[in-house]
Amino acid sequence: MNIKTLVSEIRRKKSFLCIGLDTDLEKIPKHLLENEDPIFAFNKAIIDATHELCVAYKPNMAFYEAYGVKGWKALEKTMTYLNQNYPQLFTIADAKRGDIGNTATRYAKAFFDNMGFDSITVAPYMGKDSVEPFLAFKDKHTILLALTSNTGAFDFQTKQLGDHFLYEEVLEISKTYTNSENLMYVVGATKTEYIGEIRRRVPHNFLLVPGVGAQGGNLHDVCKYGLNSDIGLLINSSRGIIYASEGLDFAQTAAQKAQELRDEMAKHI
Amino acid sequence: MNIKTLVSEIRRKKSFLCIGLDTDLEKIPKHLLENEDPIFAFNKAIIDATHELCVAYKPNMAFYEAYGVKGWKALEKTMTYLNQNYPQLFTIADAKRGDIGNTATRYAKAFFDNMGFDSITVAPYMGKDSVEPFLAFKDKHTILLALTSNTGAFDFQTKQLGDHFLYEEVLEISKTYTNSENLMYVVGATKTEYIGEIRRRVPHNFLLVPGVGAQGGNLHDVCKYGLNSDIGLLINSSRGIIYASEGLDFAQTAAQKAQELRDEMAKHI
Repeated sequence: MNIKTLVSEIRRKKSFLCIGLDTDLEKIPKHLLENEDPIFAFNKAIIDATHELCVAYKPNMAFYEAYGVKGWKALEKTMTYLNQNYPQLFTIADAKRGDIGNTATRYAKAFFDNMGFDSITVAPYMGKDSVEPFLAFKDKHTILLALTSNTGAFDFQTKQLGDHFLYEEVLEISKTYTNSENLMYVVGATKTEYIGEIRRRVPHNFLLVPGVGAQGGNLHDVCKYGLNSDIGLLINSSRGIIYASEGLDFAQTAAQKAQELRDEMAKHI
Repeated sequence: MNIKTLVSEIRRKKSFLCIGLDTDLEKIPKHLLENEDPIFAFNKAIIDATHELCVAYKPNMAFYEAYGVKGWKALEKTMTYLNQNYPQLFTIADAKRGDIGNTATRYAKAFFDNMGFDSITVAPYMGKDSVEPFLAFKDKHTILLALTSNTGAFDFQTKQLGDHFLYEEVLEISKTYTNSENLMYVVGATKTEYIGEIRRRVPHNFLLVPGVGAQGGNLHDVCKYGLNSDIGLLINSSRGIIYASEGLDFAQTAAQKAQELRDEMAKHI
């Protein structure tokens, strides 16, 4: 998907909500466990109930890998279902991959070509030749970790390199990569005091912002500092939406939670 | 596997060779493609031919993920085969994962518990709470990226933080993590001039060294600067061994190449 389509969907839906599909067999409603593929059954129900309220879905790879072959089958089914029924929705493989050239290309093919994801999260530590193989795919997007929402972010990301932080170096260096127009960045909602400076350094790129809700980030502040003329934000919520109810009404309740966030977002569009 | 077993296997075999299973359907001998599961057939043949010459195998996750469900099945079969037939071999999931706490725990369970890997490579960018969930597993090992063998390593890893490099900060900070005795580090063989200083900072930890062979690293120099009293090195070779021949003799030729490296290593034990 190209950025224009994403921006136009955001404006049409008045939402820049991304729903994280962190599907956990121990947390989904018990009655779904009777399904042949409960992971897919849960995802399908959530997607069917929420697809008009959000613009993106973000399956977290760890949750699928934890179930081995069964998990990968459920992931592939989810992606096929999304791409066939809701092709206008932006999809994010939350994989945080990062490896040298020929290996990075394999990961890119796995997620972009084989599974049809629009984007993937990538770790910057290995540098240029671990990121550019992803950037080479037309109309696909590479979402580089910049400043993450967890406490461990302070171990390295906010370390001082001369007059600036490591995560700012990541922004500046990555802007020089070939096809850097295909870059987006992960910026945690728990770090709103940094978002203004990040926006100054990367005025045109989308920011994927996790941590609103369960991790305590503040939607208003994220918008205040992070919005650009193309909106430029995808705000993710996972547990706060998909696990809002464990009952038969789980999908309906997820839609209510998504609607609440969407209504907040609509005020900023 | 605990470190004592690994060290004793290294001494018994006079080898600290790790063989990378970067299994690519376009590079394996054509006659194997007739097999029901050519990836597993290739891995099994390589393992059967080389298991006395090396102490570790390192499947690179990207190569398996690239084939989707088929790839994961082949990976699971390979791990079952290894753990049943050669339980004394150390296994490394070259996955370079890294994510926040609950997600990291899922990755750890997927690779350590479900697939029975002894270790996994992990990226440090997200810090403490992305690494400690892996370290919590007894007799499992977390191999943190420190200084990688690719050119992109110079983008961030060798950036100056005051009087030292970022990768040195990774070594120092990670030493303070809970269960840091379960840490190993990835150090590229193409960067031998740095290995002495790395060894000084982490005198007791194993270093996983890729880049000997195809990437041009020098075995002699790696040993000169990297060996410790427990050997403390795992030197990886992938393509130089497993793709040494495309013919019917591929496994035998792989064994010859492994033997050559083993014979060089034996001089240093």
